[in-house]
Amino acid sequence: MSNTIGNKFKITLFGESHSDSIGAVIEGIPAGIVIDFNKTKFEMDRRRPGKSDISTSRNEIDDVKILSGYFNDKTTGSPISITIKNENMKSKDYSKLIQNMRPSHADYPAKIKFNGYNDYRGGGAFSGRLTAPIVFAGAIAKQILKKKNIFIGSHISSIKNIKDDNFNELEIKTELLEKLRKEKIPTINNEIAIKMENEILEYKKNGDSVGGIVEATIINLPIGLGEPIFDSFESKLAHMLFSIPGLKGVEFGKGFEVSQMIGSDANDEYYYDEFKNIKTYSNNNGGILGGLTTSMPVIFKVAFKPTPSISIKQRTINLETEENVELKIKGRHDPCIVPRALVVVEAVAAIVTLDFLLESGIYYG
Amino acid sequence: MSNTIGNKFKITLFGESHSDSIGAVIEGIPAGIVIDFNKTKFEMDRRRPGKSDISTSRNEIDDVKILSGYFNDKTTGSPISITIKNENMKSKDYSKLIQNMRPSHADYPAKIKFNGYNDYRGGGAFSGRLTAPIVFAGAIAKQILKKKNIFIGSHISSIKNIKDDNFNELEIKTELLEKLRKEKIPTINNEIAIKMENEILEYKKNGDSVGGIVEATIINLPIGLGEPIFDSFESKLAHMLFSIPGLKGVEFGKGFEVSQMIGSDANDEYYYDEFKNIKTYSNNNGGILGGLTTSMPVIFKVAFKPTPSISIKQRTINLETEENVELKIKGRHDPCIVPRALVVVEAVAAIVTLDFLLESGIYYG
Amino acid sequence: MSNTIGNKFKITLFGESHSDSIGAVIEGIPAGIVIDFNKTKFEMDRRRPGKSDISTSRNEIDDVKILSGYFNDKTTGSPISITIKNENMKSKDYSKLIQNMRPSHADYPAKIKFNGYNDYRGGGAFSGRLTAPIVFAGAIAKQILKKKNIFIGSHISSIKNIKDDNFNELEIKTELLEKLRKEKIPTINNEIAIKMENEILEYKKNGDSVGGIVEATIINLPIGLGEPIFDSFESKLAHMLFSIPGLKGVEFGKGFEVSQMIGSDANDEYYYDEFKNIKTYSNNNGGILGGLTTSMPVIFKVAFKPTPSISIKQRTINLETEENVELKIKGRHDPCIVPRALVVVEAVAAIVTLDFLLESGIYYG
Amino acid sequence: MSNTIGNKFKITLFGESHSDSIGAVIEGIPAGIVIDFNKTKFEMDRRRPGKSDISTSRNEIDDVKILSGYFNDKTTGSPISITIKNENMKSKDYSKLIQNMRPSHADYPAKIKFNGYNDYRGGGAFSGRLTAPIVFAGAIAKQILKKKNIFIGSHISSIKNIKDDNFNELEIKTELLEKLRKEKIPTINNEIAIKMENEILEYKKNGDSVGGIVEATIINLPIGLGEPIFDSFESKLAHMLFSIPGLKGVEFGKGFEVSQMIGSDANDEYYYDEFKNIKTYSNNNGGILGGLTTSMPVIFKVAFKPTPSISIKQRTINLETEENVELKIKGRHDPCIVPRALVVVEAVAAIVTLDFLLESGIYYG
Repeated sequence: MSNTIGNKFKITLFGESHSDSIGAVIEGIPAGIVIDFNKTKFEMDRRRPGKSDISTSRNEIDDVKILSGYFNDKTTGSPISITIKNENMKSKDYSKLIQNMRPSHADYPAKIKFNGYNDYRGGGAFSGRLTAPIVFAGAIAKQILKKKNIFIGSHISSIKNIKDDNFNELEIKTELLEKLRKEKIPTINNEIAIKMENEILEYKKNGDSVGGIVEATIINLPIGLGEPIFDSFESKLAHMLFSIPGLKGVEFGKGFEVSQMIGSDANDEYYYDEFKNIKTYSNNNGGILGGLTTSMPVIFKVAFKPTPSISIKQRTINLETEENVELKIKGRHDPCIVPRALVVVEAVAAIVTLDFLLESGIYYG
Repeated sequence: MSNTIGNKFKITLFGESHSDSIGAVIEGIPAGIVIDFNKTKFEMDRRRPGKSDISTSRNEIDDVKILSGYFNDKTTGSPISITIKNENMKSKDYSKLIQNMRPSHADYPAKIKFNGYNDYRGGGAFSGRLTAPIVFAGAIAKQILKKKNIFIGSHISSIKNIKDDNFNELEIKTELLEKLRKEKIPTINNEIAIKMENEILEYKKNGDSVGGIVEATIINLPIGLGEPIFDSFESKLAHMLFSIPGLKGVEFGKGFEVSQMIGSDANDEYYYDEFKNIKTYSNNNGGILGGLTTSMPVIFKVAFKPTPSISIKQRTINLETEENVELKIKGRHDPCIVPRALVVVEAVAAIVTLDFLLESGIYYG
Repeated sequence: MSNTIGNKFKITLFGESHSDSIGAVIEGIPAGIVIDFNKTKFEMDRRRPGKSDISTSRNEIDDVKILSGYFNDKTTGSPISITIKNENMKSKDYSKLIQNMRPSHADYPAKIKFNGYNDYRGGGAFSGRLTAPIVFAGAIAKQILKKKNIFIGSHISSIKNIKDDNFNELEIKTELLEKLRKEKIPTINNEIAIKMENEILEYKKNGDSVGGIVEATIINLPIGLGEPIFDSFESKLAHMLFSIPGLKGVEFGKGFEVSQMIGSDANDEYYYDEFKNIKTYSNNNGGILGGLTTSMPVIFKVAFKPTPSISIKQRTINLETEENVELKIKGRHDPCIVPRALVVVEAVAAIVTLDFLLESGIYYG
Repeated sequence: MSNTIGNKFKITLFGESHSDSIGAVIEGIPAGIVIDFNKTKFEMDRRRPGKSDISTSRNEIDDVKILSGYFNDKTTGSPISITIKNENMKSKDYSKLIQNMRPSHADYPAKIKFNGYNDYRGGGAFSGRLTAPIVFAGAIAKQILKKKNIFIGSHISSIKNIKDDNFNELEIKTELLEKLRKEKIPTINNEIAIKMENEILEYKKNGDSVGGIVEATIINLPIGLGEPIFDSFESKLAHMLFSIPGLKGVEFGKGFEVSQMIGSDANDEYYYDEFKNIKTYSNNNGGILGGLTTSMPVIFKVAFKPTPSISIKQRTINLETEENVELKIKGRHDPCIVPRALVVVEAVAAIVTLDFLLESGIYYG
């Protein structure tokens, strides 16, 4: 296991779905920062399950307890460490799963890797629950980035085949990002949200699940963030994004689509605008060239698979009896993880961006 | 800049397109390994430009000089360090580019990041030329992996809109991978290769360029490679892949497509075959669950943008005069980078896989 | 701040002397290990203050709470995370210290580094209290090392000018290490312990403090642990040792004394004993050559300064008034930190050794 | 092997004593720096053997070739990579050593660690020759530090029992450091140098060797450098110091001596001087408190063992015949490594200090 990430802004996660607690040690926050805990709670609530009929009915409170690093209402420069109690767990739900491997979950390779000693309950260390402290760390990062006028936001680009509009690649307003942040199903085109919700509920009815795509953006970045060759902006962001459970693809700018273009169309040509600001006529590269930010909006998309926990009968194996069996997963599960995972995507973007900013020395400037 | 990557199998790259040499320090190769230098040369030649009319006419010899770490025809356990002389450079070609920023190249953000001191000739440290030592390190990694029966291969999945067949997700034969390795335009469906070549030549005629997609695979992996939460197999592989110039998207298994599926279709159900081997009916997850390898073929796709260097007139800025200008890039450039980049993709896959293997302790077993 | 250390066996510390809790995230413990919590408690008690009149009268309970990574009485392979509640704190004792810098404490440079926002109470993040979770992690490491027959032990080599005998450099019995572990003032020569205790009490009477030296050993190590050039066995061990508060010197084998010798005396000559075991006639190098373990006992000494907290009047500065002032530190302090610090030295040795062992792949063999 | 060190200013070493070349990749040098190659050559010459009768008669030219990272007479921001050709090697000298283990050298544990495949010629990767690129990197670091008014210097504190005066712990003039830099045997008390030289020559006559101690200093450091808990200034400096061959002890300030003091004498009391500068009456802590620099001179001592290569007959083992044998090492060796190792100690101090400075963000300020 490797539970630590980041260079200057460093996160160490711990915990399993059904252990006493989960939590994080968050290193590298500059001293003297006032944290707005209403905002961290707001972000935690966005990710929290049990809020509506499109997410799991598990009701996790996600009360974050600060153990250190905060004194006289300011950060001390020493790590902020947090715990979140695991409550409302139904460990018995998982007792039958010990030997019956849930398809498309980590159960089988994890059992082999850890010689059967891993905590299998609720997915153990592989549970999406571990993303809660990521969201908390991301909420702090967002507040620090905001002091530098950097904003992060996202919307659901698609649920199954239902597509929302794309971000305007040339200019994204903070107002739009603020609006999206408050929505249950954040979309640029509001009518699409209703269609998406209905689609999710439709498949939920059958005990099935659906996947989708999140489009996210980081705006007002300084030029030159990124540490190529090997720590390009894309590399470090993709690295952490691919630790979000269920995420199977990452593309920047036009991504896979740009592979079907020709150079004369794909290239983002430069011009000086009337105020002598440097701009590009297009942003097919998603605000990143040579692994460095260009000051255009960083835009990326990530693909989530349908939640693997479905209540429809599935074929699988029983490792004890070594027989083919059928499995019907009970418990309370998200029919679609995308509306909650989107909050994690934003948190990851905030964490990685702050890490680059602190590394660059610009933050201190 | 961050020029080092890897934990146990660690690569440190150095050099710029027009510096005296480029090279790498390759740490972590176990002692006592015999390197087949015909095979490393074979891989270097696959990536080398100037071989055919679909790649740049620059003729780089890419003679690799071993400086250390090899004694009595075996590795010593100390780093293998290599240099590759930069020759056949036409530095004058780039003299006009100092102030005229080439669209979709790293020129502009690099100039800002390094206060104008970066070596701009030939893309400097951002040049695709830096992938040559990656290919060499990858060729060594492939040889070591082969001792554990692990094979890596790839084909061109698409050039612009022309698509090849996909790998069989359930079983990929080493014979196929061996065959692909020898082809100029490696495709599963041979007729497609001809169409792709014609498409590239068609756009080359106009001084334009095209993009494409590479599909790659790693077969016969042990179960459980990967170090989640933050060093999942996908995370580390995507991290290094995104340091390949021009790469804009990475997806594992069905990737973005799986986001349009429903859980009951997307899940990879398990079964025991007649020999009590554990298999899945599908491989939508591309051989990775919870960030761990499952022993099914690891399959991933990466998207490359069209080469940004085109000889068609483009709009850009002159940073000295602060005026909008027109730019026509001369020099010798690849009309399509995909056939050469594919070799780098394989090398990266080999390097990351070997690093995981050495980390796991399995290699020593 | 940098609160994470280790490659495979990795410790992330958090907390401040007067924050809610302190604790650690301990990564890299193999799955399936049964932890003997009597033994971890035994080690915690050895370090715990308030046991006797030669240590501070602060009574810290040091109850360790396990939050994750332990399931069905075995490690899961996921990090063990722990918290220790901060209790019996007298924060008021420190209120006057905000502006009056305690001599030879971290107060002054810490205040400058963190712009005055650091938690100054009880030394904050620089408190010796942070060594409690190190001792816990070390106690786990010791148990795992014992399975490989590796033992760690130490004694007080000197308190002020009172010197104990040295370890036998050629052979150290586990029985001796077991005996030392149980002593309040661990010495090879028992009469020395009494003299040392009297010396400490003598200076305590005056509100003064004394320093001393710890000699430690690691026995039965395999040959070749260490990763030179830069991660020599000495390098990594010294690195972590120098994070113990009050530690000002580290030497291996004869250390500073060997610098006064001549080569023909200093060299450790080899011989085969009657059973064809390879041995040396001396062990001036302390079991390490070229940064690699030789299988002879690793022996090292570390020097601790006298506790800087004394109740004798001292001259210092007041940063607010910018005046020279006098300071008399109240509160409960150790007249000599050595008997407690010795436990931390052993823990650090265990942690670093296990990290090397896991890295070497030998553990898995 | 672990050949990379540093966070922002990062060095990757490669090569073996008798491989084609040795060298380094030096990452993290800010762009736009003019390197004075006369100064790097001056430092290389200080370390170079063959200059006088107190060092080995091997005549290494140590011509450093720059391969990358330097363009238009300035650093580019991309790594500086260098090679130094191995010449004037007498590989045959070592042919008998394959099976006869040289006492107190790395030969034996290295042979075991690398299963006999390590390059044993001239000590291979464990040779002191590998410190040449460290000195080069240190010479660059010194030049950058000088821009911030930070100076590093050292003298020989002792050769065997002959002791030089100590640095004035309260104030060290740059003039003194400049003077010391130019001396063959740098001492504060000039008469001592002559005695030391005679002592070395005396033991050289017999084919024996002597050890000694280096005292080094870093002056004009800003307050607060260091990243405790685990990357204290002492920790990172000691870490890299212990990778210098033959170094067996490191102490800061009064070091082992302070362990014999009492708190009221050992504590460094503060005062405001007449210009309201903050000073201390003593500097027993060597300019570091809580792992952070205090702005007082950083002072540390390191102990070197006598060169293990002596031409006096020694007892050892032959691994092939498994018999006890006698060994007489031929070849050209330093009767005392201290005068050359001192240059490496300074280089390491410069490298680690610059790394801390770049990490702190102060450099960019």
